Amino acid sequence: MRVSYDTMVNEFIRVLRKRGFTEERAGLSAKLYADASRDGVYTHGLNRFPKFMISIDKGCVDIHADPVLTESFGFLERYNGQKGPGNLNAWSCMKRAISLAKEHTVGCVALSNTNHWMRLGNYGLMAAEENCIGILWTNTVPNMPPWGGREARLGNNPVVIAIPHGDVPVLVDVAMSMFSYGKLESYARSGKELPVDGGYNKDQKITRNAAEILETHQSVPIGYWKGSGLSLALDLIAATLAGGRTSRMVGELSVETELSQIFVAISLDALPDSERLLKNIDDTLNDMKTSMPVSADHPVYYPGENMMRTRKENMELGIPVDEEIWQKVLEM
Amino acid sequence: MRVSYDTMVNEFIRVLRKRGFTEERAGLSAKLYADASRDGVYTHGLNRFPKFMISIDKGCVDIHADPVLTESFGFLERYNGQKGPGNLNAWSCMKRAISLAKEHTVGCVALSNTNHWMRLGNYGLMAAEENCIGILWTNTVPNMPPWGGREARLGNNPVVIAIPHGDVPVLVDVAMSMFSYGKLESYARSGKELPVDGGYNKDQKITRNAAEILETHQSVPIGYWKGSGLSLALDLIAATLAGGRTSRMVGELSVETELSQIFVAISLDALPDSERLLKNIDDTLNDMKTSMPVSADHPVYYPGENMMRTRKENMELGIPVDEEIWQKVLEM
Repeated sequence: MRVSYDTMVNEFIRVLRKRGFTEERAGLSAKLYADASRDGVYTHGLNRFPKFMISIDKGCVDIHADPVLTESFGFLERYNGQKGPGNLNAWSCMKRAISLAKEHTVGCVALSNTNHWMRLGNYGLMAAEENCIGILWTNTVPNMPPWGGREARLGNNPVVIAIPHGDVPVLVDVAMSMFSYGKLESYARSGKELPVDGGYNKDQKITRNAAEILETHQSVPIGYWKGSGLSLALDLIAATLAGGRTSRMVGELSVETELSQIFVAISLDALPDSERLLKNIDDTLNDMKTSMPVSADHPVYYPGENMMRTRKENMELGIPVDEEIWQKVLEM
Repeated sequence: MRVSYDTMVNEFIRVLRKRGFTEERAGLSAKLYADASRDGVYTHGLNRFPKFMISIDKGCVDIHADPVLTESFGFLERYNGQKGPGNLNAWSCMKRAISLAKEHTVGCVALSNTNHWMRLGNYGLMAAEENCIGILWTNTVPNMPPWGGREARLGNNPVVIAIPHGDVPVLVDVAMSMFSYGKLESYARSGKELPVDGGYNKDQKITRNAAEILETHQSVPIGYWKGSGLSLALDLIAATLAGGRTSRMVGELSVETELSQIFVAISLDALPDSERLLKNIDDTLNDMKTSMPVSADHPVYYPGENMMRTRKENMELGIPVDEEIWQKVLEM
């Protein structure tokens, strides 16, 4: 079943308005959820929407709260997210980082006390559309063991890097764990083997068997010891600059909230040779694609390229939806 | 065989002075090489020194050149490295980023037209010693296939992130390929299996056999598609901000030179709650180490911790050296 983008946006607006969101905030939040599904990130679009409603009902999210500037140091600004909706908070902070970048070439916003930002690619794309490089990340609840350990002490701390490139920007969107729990569950259900090693089994051997990893909860970081170090660093930088909670401290709460996030924008407008630089970016992307493919039927794509193909298809044919979830939203 | 730190520094100074380095530059370069060996990064200390001499002889390195400020945009400064020695260029740019950070909280320097910076951890530690977070990376010659491809189009683009933490800062030092070619060669020589998958064999199957990967030159990025995207982004950001060569363009040269690098420093001095934040960092590191170990004889360490142990040992007992290489330096 497919649903048009506009139908999805309007349905989200209807539900959010019913919960008390102002017209403006309902419109923006609805757009951010629908954009995720439109771009193929279904897990953080429609499929996540009912869970967002539950967070509101539980009182984890203050639907009226906006990020408040608490400190300003040179071109780094600190905001307190006041437990507002994670997507609206992230949107505001990225917007602020972009406007700082338009003024000073580089802008950096650190946000504390916020909620899950849903699909992080949205905010990277905001930067790229404004001719800015965007670099942003969040910490999370501890959900991944550090390298050498069995018990979760690190978050999977996803990062987005977006680089302007016409209508199809580069969009790197990577969590520091090799596979999310959602992905492991879907492999376990299908009985298929993971394409690469994903974690430890109960004999402490690295495995591609998703069900075994779900038993131990020992997923591996990307690049093993390397991703473990990167995850740690991302958490410490976010929490330090934001003056907010580290992953460890988020883990002390009963739910995942009060997260720390970083939003960096670097404007290419100011660079005197930006035309040449954009050509260099284009040359690199074209060159990458000339690498002979490992499988003849899978050409090399750059990150973000397939997403734009999905977007085009979903705008033309409608966005594929899980009928049960869609029905649930219609009844909200 | 072990050699004292001072003996090593003095020997490097002697050789560099003989090649025409000024006293000051010989002293700094010698210290940076010896620091690498002292901290256990032998590959980029003594063991690399003879190769550096060859680069000078070949005319790839201008031993007298210093980085020159070409443009300044808000908090971002661009320098041209003028093909100077990579370690001296990197040291200057990190120093400049730190002093920008002391003034504006964040400082960012982009460097073009430079040479291999040898041990990148040195520059991260400079930042941590000044109570700054340091984030730096370089691009390299294409030496890694993009995900899905067989032919190298991306660099392994190493990154360092350093975070202040008393005498034993966090030091994350990761290249975007799972194993360097040096590491693959050493595994292939020993006949031992890699601890995790490292690349493709000629049947295009992922393997832990280092010799087979050396045959195909198809090493895998950390986290496979994830590291492929990160490597691409790091290259494009470095080259764009520096106005310098991308990895692709470095690959057009007959040797690896004219690299692009980024140096970011963020000073914790300005943060009003820095004492609390440093305690949060310490708490996270202590908490990580309470994760039950996968192997009872390998406790969990945080990145940088073992390095400081090696440093202490090497300062007390002398730095272990490859006798053949040491002899070669003595005869230079």
